[in-house]
Amino acid sequence: MIKVFSQNHAYGIEIGRGLLSSLGRYCSRLSVGKDAFIVTNARVKRAYGGICALSLKEAGFTVSFCLVGDSEKSKSLAVCGKVLERLAGFDRGKRPFIVALGGGVVGDLAGFCAAVYKRGIPYVQVPTTLLAQVDSSIGGKTAVDLKAGKNLAGAFYPPRLVVTDVELLASLPRRQLVSGMAEVVKYGVISDPGLFRRLEADSSKILAGGLKELEYCVERCARIKAAIVSRDEREEKGLRTILNFGHTVGHAVEAASCYSGITHGEAISIGMACACSLSVRLGLLDGANAARVENALRLYGLPVMAGNTLTPRLIIEPLFRDKKFKGKNRFVLLRDIGRPVIVDDVSPELIREVVRARIRS
Amino acid sequence: MIKVFSQNHAYGIEIGRGLLSSLGRYCSRLSVGKDAFIVTNARVKRAYGGICALSLKEAGFTVSFCLVGDSEKSKSLAVCGKVLERLAGFDRGKRPFIVALGGGVVGDLAGFCAAVYKRGIPYVQVPTTLLAQVDSSIGGKTAVDLKAGKNLAGAFYPPRLVVTDVELLASLPRRQLVSGMAEVVKYGVISDPGLFRRLEADSSKILAGGLKELEYCVERCARIKAAIVSRDEREEKGLRTILNFGHTVGHAVEAASCYSGITHGEAISIGMACACSLSVRLGLLDGANAARVENALRLYGLPVMAGNTLTPRLIIEPLFRDKKFKGKNRFVLLRDIGRPVIVDDVSPELIREVVRARIRS
Repeated sequence: MIKVFSQNHAYGIEIGRGLLSSLGRYCSRLSVGKDAFIVTNARVKRAYGGICALSLKEAGFTVSFCLVGDSEKSKSLAVCGKVLERLAGFDRGKRPFIVALGGGVVGDLAGFCAAVYKRGIPYVQVPTTLLAQVDSSIGGKTAVDLKAGKNLAGAFYPPRLVVTDVELLASLPRRQLVSGMAEVVKYGVISDPGLFRRLEADSSKILAGGLKELEYCVERCARIKAAIVSRDEREEKGLRTILNFGHTVGHAVEAASCYSGITHGEAISIGMACACSLSVRLGLLDGANAARVENALRLYGLPVMAGNTLTPRLIIEPLFRDKKFKGKNRFVLLRDIGRPVIVDDVSPELIREVVRARIRS
Repeated sequence: MIKVFSQNHAYGIEIGRGLLSSLGRYCSRLSVGKDAFIVTNARVKRAYGGICALSLKEAGFTVSFCLVGDSEKSKSLAVCGKVLERLAGFDRGKRPFIVALGGGVVGDLAGFCAAVYKRGIPYVQVPTTLLAQVDSSIGGKTAVDLKAGKNLAGAFYPPRLVVTDVELLASLPRRQLVSGMAEVVKYGVISDPGLFRRLEADSSKILAGGLKELEYCVERCARIKAAIVSRDEREEKGLRTILNFGHTVGHAVEAASCYSGITHGEAISIGMACACSLSVRLGLLDGANAARVENALRLYGLPVMAGNTLTPRLIIEPLFRDKKFKGKNRFVLLRDIGRPVIVDDVSPELIREVVRARIRS
């Protein structure tokens, strides 16, 4: 078990194969009440709802499902309101707890619902995508989107437990697996040269869904994220900031494509490629290492160039509205693999130039 | 200044006459950024918006108003969403802060918006009603209502400062002043026999809007609430629970009347009368003291009987759904003036009998 320390409480991340069938047993150790409200989507419920509910019932829990759509559109205050009304109907006066069974959308939404229902009830993350297993299920950032921007309404609200069953990745569509690998590459690049070398060596096994290799990746990434958020939960000390490597331009790419037609992983892959180019142009990183990062992304079928329907303006404008900027521009760049550096106020001309070179003509 | 200690941070309550014109000066000591987003309603803006904005501008702040309706209906996720979108439009990339200028509805709603916008921005409470000055502005409970119940979506999120200008009470409609006095009587009854005696003696001066007397009341009540929430912010130790004296039946009365036709203070006045009756029936309180409490409520024109459109069933059913119950029934009762006691599992028959006797036939 990996431990995460939070201002509210410490919690564990259990990682392994076949853990879903032990979910009830894990939950019964938490003193979270007896009523489990499972937030998930229809696809995930079909695949894992049965085993999840059975495990909880066998451990003595009452179970109710609440289905939400599986696109980013579900991360809204309106859907949050519907989930909360359903939850209030399920609530028998004892405090229920939430099980977030799904990917990042379900985890962020269900976590936010847990944060605000009766000013906070416990929740357990059961991430079903690679992206959620290595990133969004850890660290307690919950949120929904506003029209004005992604994740603008949220809370720092850690789960009571994360149950990460890597076997669930076996049924993951390839594009989602690849999207998650972008974050895995990120962890290697920002803090684990050993992981990065394994990613260079094992790409075919990983892409074929090799559970041993995936479990290694998930475990390494979870450890890195757990260590960082334990020291800088609320992104106040600049430590958590390095997790945004590739995300500044990545978020802009997602916004420019209106969050459709491109996965989060694909967008941050382009973002990481841009961050490497910027690092090279600023004399921080040598070209050979930038090429290694680009090559690793390509090994997993991840893009390092944006489509030509995007214009530099579409990508650059939102940069100056990104909530990570706090009014000035800030990039996580690279000195070497495993050595990130935070750079403020990169020249807008240089950003423009580097982004332009990453758009297919 | 009264200090309140919270898990997040300590904050002050400034109480006095004419403080609104110093709001800007107070805010400039807080390091809350330069952009003030004032959430208020049209009536309060007409009365105090000008002086509030001027004071902030003179201290170098950018100011924007966001108007919300002044009924309980504004405490919804939908209105919260509208406020947040407006706030995102005002946000220039530096973190703005919120000024909650109004009564309990504005304070609860604006506080919740501050709690969730970008996972938390600072806010300052400027309570304009007696109820908000002695109760809702202190303690960091923020919330909006769900269809399923009041305050079901919220956060413990303390303000950075409370600026309480008792002069604002001069323009308060009498019914709202009286409603606030119910909470003032409550503080006297649960923890300050000296305040209670003053309330018995000074009713005509207070009802005439005597600022000296009102300032004394507000200051005493704020001190009591600050001391209690500093020791039990999240209602985990049973200390904060005593603040619910009169609220168990009071909330049920409000719910039974669908939150219209009766003020919060009127409802908890009836609730306090019921709590006194229960205390007497359980042999905890002697009848003379119960009569003193009832008499004090009557002095301020507060009801101790519910209207006959209410039925015992309408009042009693919601009791068993109240979120304060946590599955069993729990009452704050009285041994003496200044000596509250928490009693679990009062017999439903006795509750029914006591409530029935409080409904005008």
